[in-house]
Amino acid sequence: MKIGLIGLGKMGYQLALNMHEHGHEVVAFNRSPEKTKEIEKEGIQGVYSIAELVENLPQPRVVWIMVPAGKPVDDMIAQLTDLLDPKDIIIDGGNSFYKDTLRRYQELKEKNLDFVDVGTSGGIEGARYGACTMIGAEEKIFTYLEPLFKDISIENGYLHTGANGSGHYVKMVHNGIEYGMMQAIGEGFEILEKSQFDLDFEKVAKVWNHGSVIRGWLMELTQSAFSKDENLEGIRGIIRSSGEGLWTVQEALELGVPAPVIAQSLFVRYRSEQEDSFSGKVVAALRNEFGGHGFEKR
Amino acid sequence: MKIGLIGLGKMGYQLALNMHEHGHEVVAFNRSPEKTKEIEKEGIQGVYSIAELVENLPQPRVVWIMVPAGKPVDDMIAQLTDLLDPKDIIIDGGNSFYKDTLRRYQELKEKNLDFVDVGTSGGIEGARYGACTMIGAEEKIFTYLEPLFKDISIENGYLHTGANGSGHYVKMVHNGIEYGMMQAIGEGFEILEKSQFDLDFEKVAKVWNHGSVIRGWLMELTQSAFSKDENLEGIRGIIRSSGEGLWTVQEALELGVPAPVIAQSLFVRYRSEQEDSFSGKVVAALRNEFGGHGFEKR
Repeated sequence: MKIGLIGLGKMGYQLALNMHEHGHEVVAFNRSPEKTKEIEKEGIQGVYSIAELVENLPQPRVVWIMVPAGKPVDDMIAQLTDLLDPKDIIIDGGNSFYKDTLRRYQELKEKNLDFVDVGTSGGIEGARYGACTMIGAEEKIFTYLEPLFKDISIENGYLHTGANGSGHYVKMVHNGIEYGMMQAIGEGFEILEKSQFDLDFEKVAKVWNHGSVIRGWLMELTQSAFSKDENLEGIRGIIRSSGEGLWTVQEALELGVPAPVIAQSLFVRYRSEQEDSFSGKVVAALRNEFGGHGFEKR
Repeated sequence: MKIGLIGLGKMGYQLALNMHEHGHEVVAFNRSPEKTKEIEKEGIQGVYSIAELVENLPQPRVVWIMVPAGKPVDDMIAQLTDLLDPKDIIIDGGNSFYKDTLRRYQELKEKNLDFVDVGTSGGIEGARYGACTMIGAEEKIFTYLEPLFKDISIENGYLHTGANGSGHYVKMVHNGIEYGMMQAIGEGFEILEKSQFDLDFEKVAKVWNHGSVIRGWLMELTQSAFSKDENLEGIRGIIRSSGEGLWTVQEALELGVPAPVIAQSLFVRYRSEQEDSFSGKVVAALRNEFGGHGFEKR
């Protein structure tokens, strides 16, 4: 299959190599041309405008966009719709919010364009050597594209989750679960670190990866991290987030689902980004007001 | 090695078979004789009193106890210490609280008995075919017993975590992490279940087990559970707990470690055991008091 791939970021670049290796003809575009030049060295055709990308694809065109969620996706879709023909297919393989996906699907439908949402997991390694893909699409479009999804995914690692939007939805919840699991792992190791025992964290993570209930890829990554820096002294505990955890919590709120662990994981990340907290100041001030407890001055 | 094994419950029974299969001579005792009779059919020597167990072991005796945490462990140790000789070794392979383990270690030390704590993970299947074991022991005792630990554990699945108490400590934190990971998975699937999409939970869990970030044994068990009952209609969402999560949270409190996700996971379990909650009544009553909001009458 000939595929136009837009966005050669961390995931997109590896995905292009993955498709190329599986015999798909990739036509790659990136906003800054350096990445395009780089990928040309891998035998992939680079293009330097969206118009050039569209010209180089046979109809029905398949354009996979891999750009940051939000406005970049809308902007790219706007550019593409001016150039594409009816029955062409846009695949959004990024981490878009599913409500945006539902809106885009409707808007593109009115222009006779097909739209597919693909949630992609497995990190950079997965994008390169076999991802986990969750695909929201109309049945016939899914069937048409299935060979592509099969090729870029690990064995049994792709699923037509259902109607449009469901791919990004399932990916969103996947990331919400990931937030909670990661936070649980983090808390556990902090307890170990503060404990009276002199523990080798890498060895603990390693033994947990061999036969324990909590074995899994996240624990393998934990082991890997401790193998590089035994007490993580080179890392600050500031945790960014890119939207999926927030959306999972927003969705839980809208649906009335009690999701305290996923919500807490998100709040822990927000707190980690603050040097000091205003809520902390308020509570310290109150303790001083009623109980005369001292506070630390700035 | 010849080992006395006390307690043929879910884990102990499988562990006895595991040891036996690896060529160790197991002498098994259980409080109720039915289990002992059952295991005798597997070619394992059954005994019907602690005295008989002790008589059947060569010195230094190795006695592995696998009984419920708390008083049953103390009672069993008291019985054993009357019968054992200096340099005999008691292994507590159950889920004991590490502070009890530290106390028992000291008490037994005074009686010239050696004590080893083993945290065992991997469920019933692990106990039978290869567990994950975390071992707190003096170096020389660990070295003496290492062949046994190696045999009953999966490859790379045993670790001398350090000083006495550390085996149970690491196992405790493992279970705390497990609480948080399981709760995150539960919340994620409840969001999926309440969502506008018609999802096949077994297939979602399956695709997540193939290449996603959250792949691991717990997700495999999730897949297995949905394969048996696609919407878990036969199961009530009541979650018991057996102490390890509570101890992890208590430990976090004592150490001053913020562990909101593990703590929340525990509270969610407690709430799940209540039909109604008194805190709920109080808050409903207060909303009525100040805002005239109705409440549901009993």
